Amino acid sequence: MFEQIDQEMRKRHVQAIIVFGETTLADPNLTYVAGGTLARGGVYVKRVGQKPILVTSNLDIGTARKSGRVERIETFTQWGLEKLTARFGRTEALPRLLDEILRKKRIKGRVVLCGRNDLASGTYLIDRLRRLGVRVSGESSPTILEAARETKDRKEIEEIRSVGKKTVRVVTAISDTLKSMKRKRGHLAIGKRRATVGAVKALILSNLAAEGLTAPEGTIFAVGPSSADPHNSGIRTDEIKEGKLIVFDIFPQAESGYWFDLTRTFIVGRASLKDRRLYEAVHEAQTECLDFMRAGTTGEAAMSKACDVIERRGYRTIRDIYQRKATNISSGFIHSLGHGVGLTIGERPYLSFLSKEPLKSGQIVTVEPGIYLPRYGGARIEDTVLITSKGIDNLTSVDKEFELT
Amino acid sequence: MFEQIDQEMRKRHVQAIIVFGETTLADPNLTYVAGGTLARGGVYVKRVGQKPILVTSNLDIGTARKSGRVERIETFTQWGLEKLTARFGRTEALPRLLDEILRKKRIKGRVVLCGRNDLASGTYLIDRLRRLGVRVSGESSPTILEAARETKDRKEIEEIRSVGKKTVRVVTAISDTLKSMKRKRGHLAIGKRRATVGAVKALILSNLAAEGLTAPEGTIFAVGPSSADPHNSGIRTDEIKEGKLIVFDIFPQAESGYWFDLTRTFIVGRASLKDRRLYEAVHEAQTECLDFMRAGTTGEAAMSKACDVIERRGYRTIRDIYQRKATNISSGFIHSLGHGVGLTIGERPYLSFLSKEPLKSGQIVTVEPGIYLPRYGGARIEDTVLITSKGIDNLTSVDKEFELT
Repeated sequence: MFEQIDQEMRKRHVQAIIVFGETTLADPNLTYVAGGTLARGGVYVKRVGQKPILVTSNLDIGTARKSGRVERIETFTQWGLEKLTARFGRTEALPRLLDEILRKKRIKGRVVLCGRNDLASGTYLIDRLRRLGVRVSGESSPTILEAARETKDRKEIEEIRSVGKKTVRVVTAISDTLKSMKRKRGHLAIGKRRATVGAVKALILSNLAAEGLTAPEGTIFAVGPSSADPHNSGIRTDEIKEGKLIVFDIFPQAESGYWFDLTRTFIVGRASLKDRRLYEAVHEAQTECLDFMRAGTTGEAAMSKACDVIERRGYRTIRDIYQRKATNISSGFIHSLGHGVGLTIGERPYLSFLSKEPLKSGQIVTVEPGIYLPRYGGARIEDTVLITSKGIDNLTSVDKEFELT
Repeated sequence: MFEQIDQEMRKRHVQAIIVFGETTLADPNLTYVAGGTLARGGVYVKRVGQKPILVTSNLDIGTARKSGRVERIETFTQWGLEKLTARFGRTEALPRLLDEILRKKRIKGRVVLCGRNDLASGTYLIDRLRRLGVRVSGESSPTILEAARETKDRKEIEEIRSVGKKTVRVVTAISDTLKSMKRKRGHLAIGKRRATVGAVKALILSNLAAEGLTAPEGTIFAVGPSSADPHNSGIRTDEIKEGKLIVFDIFPQAESGYWFDLTRTFIVGRASLKDRRLYEAVHEAQTECLDFMRAGTTGEAAMSKACDVIERRGYRTIRDIYQRKATNISSGFIHSLGHGVGLTIGERPYLSFLSKEPLKSGQIVTVEPGIYLPRYGGARIEDTVLITSKGIDNLTSVDKEFELT
């Protein structure tokens, strides 16, 4: 949570953090501290125990104020950036601006630079600031901001819940379409078009657009054998046929910068016994994990529970590698159980055998067991859920239908 | 162009560049060297005069091969990243992996780290590599990759041309819709919905989706007074009314990572004399610039030409500031003429009074004069064009209609 920033700074003996960049686009840390998007980026400076300032372009000042995260918003012009640029050039203007801000705020202790910036210019900046006497310090993972971002506050939870509702509407629209497909000249059809992965993806995109969501990392809609590879996003020309496993994994982002992650596995028509067994194993593993997880349990324990169910059902799991029974597994439950979701689509906390820390109230994570049978197909079910002291609050209010009939 | 990388490295006495990151999303440099998107990022290492290697996740190796930019593709597993992570932790694994690669390639000279990464971890990495004896160097702007990316090769030009054609189809669909609006109960309507900025934006999004484009930085559709602010993206509840200035600025990105930038100014119905004068001044300025520009002319000269036309027509320009006739202007042509477009929506070369370098064949830039009358409205016309030795090749093949009737 945002309030942890001071605490984390004190713990690490950091006197100030500077978060900056030319855009908030795909920069979770700058989006986080600015409280929203800034088209032309900004410079956020916080001294431990004090209120921060945010320096932005004149053009972004309205947006910055609206977000309400930072009280004191100033402009590059007020800090003389244009003059520094005219006098010293673009590269030299930034370290001089930062140095000026640090002087005015009498910051002489350790300073951490944050924000996603190209490292070639970043290295220059770090070296230049150090020559100016600034004590620039690096951070090992988790950084101050990663640690703060790991637990969500009420406003963030409501935003992710809202992205979830929109995502659910998109998924429902797609499953409704799959249910209502008619057969035309021997092929399933969506409207007048043959029902291919490409046709479904076009429909997904227009449904996302109607909800004001985008999918910067794409969408997985994998049919048949390609569903056996958890990261195959689907082959556009693949046709949707009755009785084939379909893994539909959607991870959209809202304008606020927050993401959501949801996976359903479908079969159009009736499933074979083999596919039903596969699906039931995944479904049981997910249900057990959702029932088990709450603040205080560890990611490791949840992962272990998922493996228990899946192994009992006769499939292999990645636990074999951790127990050194195998060096590699290609079939079964071959990935970890989940990951945090927020201003990125994959962040702390992670739910894997390496996750020894207890989960905390306010964390938002995916719970997504999957089983994959190479060259045949796979099944994965994924909800995004909020951890609370009593259990999980499932932000994913859509049925787990398997056979679409 | 890509081939310039070696030349730029030699000029700057850099023995190797390492471009890396956890995703190519919004990282133009990593996208550029990888030749496409890598969901889980990668590490690209190039020694001067030698062929590069690209180390990626097992899951991205197919995508990486398909792009064809890098011949030698290896995996994190081959380089033992998982083992390094298990042994030393996430933070320490990366410097050890990079150090290992540099040793194997016998790189002992200056190394530049590139790729968009959070600087808190970046600082740690730089310091750690230096302690391991790596000579990490910073770069002032333009960096090696910015210099290479400034001129586009044939494949890039064709990609941007194709994004342009798609963008033009979206703009045409929107202007066709605006032309065909009917009046319902005293208000213009789009289908059954009242014609608001929000309704048009929803239509823009679904048209973008149908073309496989996204708009990560939004779209400007500003009506009436809000069009007077070049960065106001439009007020969702504003109604579209006859006789009001509309600035429609669209800047979508394709899956390849390449962008396009296009602005048109419309009036639904008939324009007043004042608005016609405004539009004609912008149109003449743009036409004169497009006729004038070619390889060898400078951005400064083009900017100057735009100001000549606009001032002759009786409006103020930002030249007043450069000539110290004013410290601030709020009315007239208040921004610069244009900027490069490629894997970002604003990059070198810039067309402003500070652009003294001659333009080069293969550069792709926007040409976008605009005139703004505060609290009243504005007009801007923008094409994205390719610079050639003979003149410009306009990648924006859509009419400049003003009155939509």
